[in-house]
Amino acid sequence: MTGRMNRQILLKTRPEGAPSPDNFELTETPIPEPSEGEVLLRILYLSLDPYMRGRMNAAKSYAKPAEIGQPMVGGTVGEIVNSRHPNFSVGDVVLGYGGWQEYAISNGKGLRKLDATIAPVSTALGVLGMPGMTAYVGLLEVGQPKPDETVVVAAASGAVGSVVGQIAKLKGCHAVGIAGGSDKCRFVIGELGFDACVDHRSPDFAKELEAACPKGIDVYFENVGGAVQQTVWPLLNDFARIPVCGLIAQYNATSPMPGPDMFSVLRKRLLLRGFIVSDFAPKQPDFLRDVSEWVRTGRLKYREDIVDGLEKAPASFIGMLQGKNFGKMLVRIAV
Amino acid sequence: MTGRMNRQILLKTRPEGAPSPDNFELTETPIPEPSEGEVLLRILYLSLDPYMRGRMNAAKSYAKPAEIGQPMVGGTVGEIVNSRHPNFSVGDVVLGYGGWQEYAISNGKGLRKLDATIAPVSTALGVLGMPGMTAYVGLLEVGQPKPDETVVVAAASGAVGSVVGQIAKLKGCHAVGIAGGSDKCRFVIGELGFDACVDHRSPDFAKELEAACPKGIDVYFENVGGAVQQTVWPLLNDFARIPVCGLIAQYNATSPMPGPDMFSVLRKRLLLRGFIVSDFAPKQPDFLRDVSEWVRTGRLKYREDIVDGLEKAPASFIGMLQGKNFGKMLVRIAV
Repeated sequence: MTGRMNRQILLKTRPEGAPSPDNFELTETPIPEPSEGEVLLRILYLSLDPYMRGRMNAAKSYAKPAEIGQPMVGGTVGEIVNSRHPNFSVGDVVLGYGGWQEYAISNGKGLRKLDATIAPVSTALGVLGMPGMTAYVGLLEVGQPKPDETVVVAAASGAVGSVVGQIAKLKGCHAVGIAGGSDKCRFVIGELGFDACVDHRSPDFAKELEAACPKGIDVYFENVGGAVQQTVWPLLNDFARIPVCGLIAQYNATSPMPGPDMFSVLRKRLLLRGFIVSDFAPKQPDFLRDVSEWVRTGRLKYREDIVDGLEKAPASFIGMLQGKNFGKMLVRIAV
Repeated sequence: MTGRMNRQILLKTRPEGAPSPDNFELTETPIPEPSEGEVLLRILYLSLDPYMRGRMNAAKSYAKPAEIGQPMVGGTVGEIVNSRHPNFSVGDVVLGYGGWQEYAISNGKGLRKLDATIAPVSTALGVLGMPGMTAYVGLLEVGQPKPDETVVVAAASGAVGSVVGQIAKLKGCHAVGIAGGSDKCRFVIGELGFDACVDHRSPDFAKELEAACPKGIDVYFENVGGAVQQTVWPLLNDFARIPVCGLIAQYNATSPMPGPDMFSVLRKRLLLRGFIVSDFAPKQPDFLRDVSEWVRTGRLKYREDIVDGLEKAPASFIGMLQGKNFGKMLVRIAV
């Protein structure tokens, strides 16, 4: 492969507020050669996920920040094109953490082989991957919905929200989505089977949400924060549970946003619990078993928003933080 | 008893912000006669508790508001002086909800007979009553402390906080109190046996709290809110639990105070859970068994702050909301 180049997108600078294309730099470097015990991956799909905004900051979060001058971090599906690792062969397609680039070296740690006969391999980055499992454990383990309860989730057409609402329905709940725009809301109801979906851009958003939740809200799956959170809060029932999974509406904030009203927490005996999918790693077999089966039998649907070409990643990522994507955001790098 | 009078303190007006003596009215009315199935109680002790501030508001909370022109609500220990109820005899001493007055009629519902040979009957309003059980269930059921973890509680010399810290010690935790003033802090360490106590009035409060919690904070028993909460928040460890029991520093606020930082909730996977002691009613036998034994054997200490005379109740209540009490606040009405 000598002579061929690996295109990469590096983190050039850290954003203040919303990221811009200037924070990224497209570069080329020779495709590396695997050492003994390593494999070379040709990346097929790069996942774009909201958590990456946090990695662009210098502050340590639950994971260490992405490094300036290095390829942006990210989950990938790749094909092994050169192997010096005993467990992997050329042609294997694996889930990994290759980052924003066309080729990546791996020592095999954390790679998981995928079987394209079960589902398209891109789903390992979405409904059958980290976003799907986030929805599964956040709703079932943290939210603990009971039949006939009302479950509300924002970004309802997205990778996580779409799975939250569909699992809520499978568990006998009243599922209400929140999404940006009537196209997404139609999809959430018509395709995903939610009971209702409310457009947060509507001038009557608060009233419409209240009307969609005639018995109040028992589980609010928090993945956006900000103004949506403020609107949801008064509708929460006593003993409501709030799995806190993300705060996409606040990621670009440069000053702190007001937290939830503590009097409600006390008076309504609310439970808020932050979680990260890796906290529930032992649940992965349950997740893969259940969700694979639901996808296979058509009871759980998913939608991908795919752009072609690594160079599209920065703009697609920036757009996703603004809600411009429609479904799980992926960059197809090779096929 | 005809001709003798019952002094009462009525809720005259609802406060805006901090209550003042003008919100209360001392009045006299003839001592009532019990009807068939009722008892007449002579109240020995009236409990003053922070939750009463909430009852003074018109807004429905988890309990309905106190009514204008009626005696303020409150827990009491009383002696039965006239009984037309088959289960109660003259001379029985009972825990009840007699309110701010010298005599009260009861139909027996909710009355619990007390045995003065086990502990002074006043403790049924404190360490062996609602405040003690609030501490017990809030710490053990919601906070779930593990040995060697750090437990922090404010109002640490008070009815709830003092029990929280002592149970934390009994469970092998590092117990850190927060209190107002050096006298209280000395008591919390010297008498109650906390590992440390920090004066929230100190100009170096934040630094001192950090120094008292060298391994961070695993359980923050929230009973004050406000500035103390803001100081505690950055010290919370990953997976910290925050039982939300009260917000005394915010009860008089006339505008909303900022809630906790949601990014911390997410990043540190915090658990916040509001609770009310009655949610855990099935735990009462466990509570009475454990805490009675700890009190009997001297492993759990308590302090009462007793004033004499019903007329002192308003000023004592107002002072308690400002932290002027030192121990469980009681009004002795008769002996």
